[in-house]
Amino acid sequence: MTIDEMVDKTGEWLKGKGPSNDVVISSRVRLARNLAGFIFSDYMPKSMAEKLVGLVKNAVDNSNYLKKHTFFSDKDITLLDKEFFKERHLISGELVEAKRPHAVCFTDDEIVSIMINEEDHLRLQVLQSGFNLVEALRLIDVIDAELENNLDYAFSPTLGYLTACPTNVGTGLRASCMLHLPALVMTKQINKVLQALSKMSIAVRGLYGEGTQATGNFFQFSNQITLGRQEEQIVNDFEKIVKQVIEHEQEARIALSNKRLTKLADQIWRSLGILRSTRIISSGEANSLLSLVRLGCDLGLIKDLNKNKLNELFIVIQPAHLQKIYRTELPVDERDEKRASLIREKLKSVSL
Amino acid sequence: MTIDEMVDKTGEWLKGKGPSNDVVISSRVRLARNLAGFIFSDYMPKSMAEKLVGLVKNAVDNSNYLKKHTFFSDKDITLLDKEFFKERHLISGELVEAKRPHAVCFTDDEIVSIMINEEDHLRLQVLQSGFNLVEALRLIDVIDAELENNLDYAFSPTLGYLTACPTNVGTGLRASCMLHLPALVMTKQINKVLQALSKMSIAVRGLYGEGTQATGNFFQFSNQITLGRQEEQIVNDFEKIVKQVIEHEQEARIALSNKRLTKLADQIWRSLGILRSTRIISSGEANSLLSLVRLGCDLGLIKDLNKNKLNELFIVIQPAHLQKIYRTELPVDERDEKRASLIREKLKSVSL
Repeated sequence: MTIDEMVDKTGEWLKGKGPSNDVVISSRVRLARNLAGFIFSDYMPKSMAEKLVGLVKNAVDNSNYLKKHTFFSDKDITLLDKEFFKERHLISGELVEAKRPHAVCFTDDEIVSIMINEEDHLRLQVLQSGFNLVEALRLIDVIDAELENNLDYAFSPTLGYLTACPTNVGTGLRASCMLHLPALVMTKQINKVLQALSKMSIAVRGLYGEGTQATGNFFQFSNQITLGRQEEQIVNDFEKIVKQVIEHEQEARIALSNKRLTKLADQIWRSLGILRSTRIISSGEANSLLSLVRLGCDLGLIKDLNKNKLNELFIVIQPAHLQKIYRTELPVDERDEKRASLIREKLKSVSL
Repeated sequence: MTIDEMVDKTGEWLKGKGPSNDVVISSRVRLARNLAGFIFSDYMPKSMAEKLVGLVKNAVDNSNYLKKHTFFSDKDITLLDKEFFKERHLISGELVEAKRPHAVCFTDDEIVSIMINEEDHLRLQVLQSGFNLVEALRLIDVIDAELENNLDYAFSPTLGYLTACPTNVGTGLRASCMLHLPALVMTKQINKVLQALSKMSIAVRGLYGEGTQATGNFFQFSNQITLGRQEEQIVNDFEKIVKQVIEHEQEARIALSNKRLTKLADQIWRSLGILRSTRIISSGEANSLLSLVRLGCDLGLIKDLNKNKLNELFIVIQPAHLQKIYRTELPVDERDEKRASLIREKLKSVSL
């Protein structure tokens, strides 16, 4: 798949399907892996980094599951391409900045992605639409095993998989879910929830992972402890916690609907009205307004907007996507205008 | 004409026609008149007030120009009816509150209205669309002369027409114009303009005359001096001053369009977007948003909304109109919902 072909579509995980998709946008499991006999990425000489990229490419090419994949080494892509991948949650901010030889590989449906020479030699990731960590774990285990047939992972019988950062040692697994929590925010319960999660070693981040702020009432939760427990156990424990947050959000939505539906409906419809009419809009404001529109869809107020289209909008209005769509570099001012124009176009058929 | 028949239409003066209708909504001339041999309204016994209403009714019935008129004495109408007339600028707030026998009479096109037993025995008013004081003065002189054929006005050769309040003695004339000055407000020049006007003895009021605040960037200007000058002179002097304000506003609009059209266009379109989507809205907020939409029409941004329809909206969203339209008494909360619903209905065909 070429990058131009990617512009007109988005990944399977954005389809708004899967369990609890009213609250959970996506579920993600990632594994950190390193190769025996190679220095960790941060300290690796250039030639070794290139050799490593080649080795992983070979393993990927021999994988059955990854048959339909696209592989880009850093030499094949621009900074804008990498920003574009980041906005699609295929790679991390750290890989965008990386100076050493590195690469990224993902399946055409964008469910599986592999970063090569990020913090670890390999970062495997599986994304699922909705609340579906079990399927993500099942899939990543298949891919991990296939790659291991052709790669010699650094593994210690006592510590488990070795990783560049000790917080990842053991299973190298991290599970995360992207949740949409507008009702907990509106009813001012969110801080209590976040404090409780922090006590349970759950990290909270924004739409784009580490170092980003929550915008548009989107919160990414992930487990912090990877050592000394089995993969299934980690995922199960994390799932139980997320489930409670989902239930809290759903209860808060019912309470909001019962108590002050007209006021809430007004906020939701006005958000749609602004999005359908704006001529200049920042991505932050667009996220906040789209968040309310999403709640409006989930509450059954807005009926003629499908969730896939809406989920996509959160992605395609990001800076790199706008520049890919309009096929030109855009300064911030112009982006705000193009963003407004794109949103109007995408929402023009939604009744007010 | 019955009040129910009035609900579905508005006065001729709201048609958005006439000179400088981009800035001037309407022009108004009023005359204060009192009858010789009658005590001023405030101190008049009930029987005398009733007699006076009868005398004026007879004079109106014998007027040629006022052939197509409607005459309501206070016994024929409710408080809500009077609020409804006030919102249409047919009567004043003072007449709404009046306890003594009183009446109102207006032509079916709502261009001419006569209040009986307001502060003065008679208050004649002519309203014109746009900046058209000359025509208003011509018309009011015709009507005044016709009434004088059947009424004995209190007139002093030295003072002129006698009035209850000395500020009206002389011609009893007041000229006023309702101006829409969004660009002077946005460019923060409005206070300078208002200060200059105050030095020239021009009074500034809101949409509904004495004691009301300017909302929606609408300002009612009127002359203060009526003694010692001819009617034509008063109107000419006032006209010259208003003309300067109109020119200032038009220059400010051009400056705004040149300097930051995209930002301004964004504000204007968002206002339309909110009006087309809101579920609860106060009349104050609606006025402000409609004001920006009006500017958008005048700047040629919004093309498919005619000015008559827009001018009407400012009137029909007022509390008494809403209650007349929905044919029921409405508490404030419900009014805000009905107002939103009416605005959405009226604007649904305007493209965003």
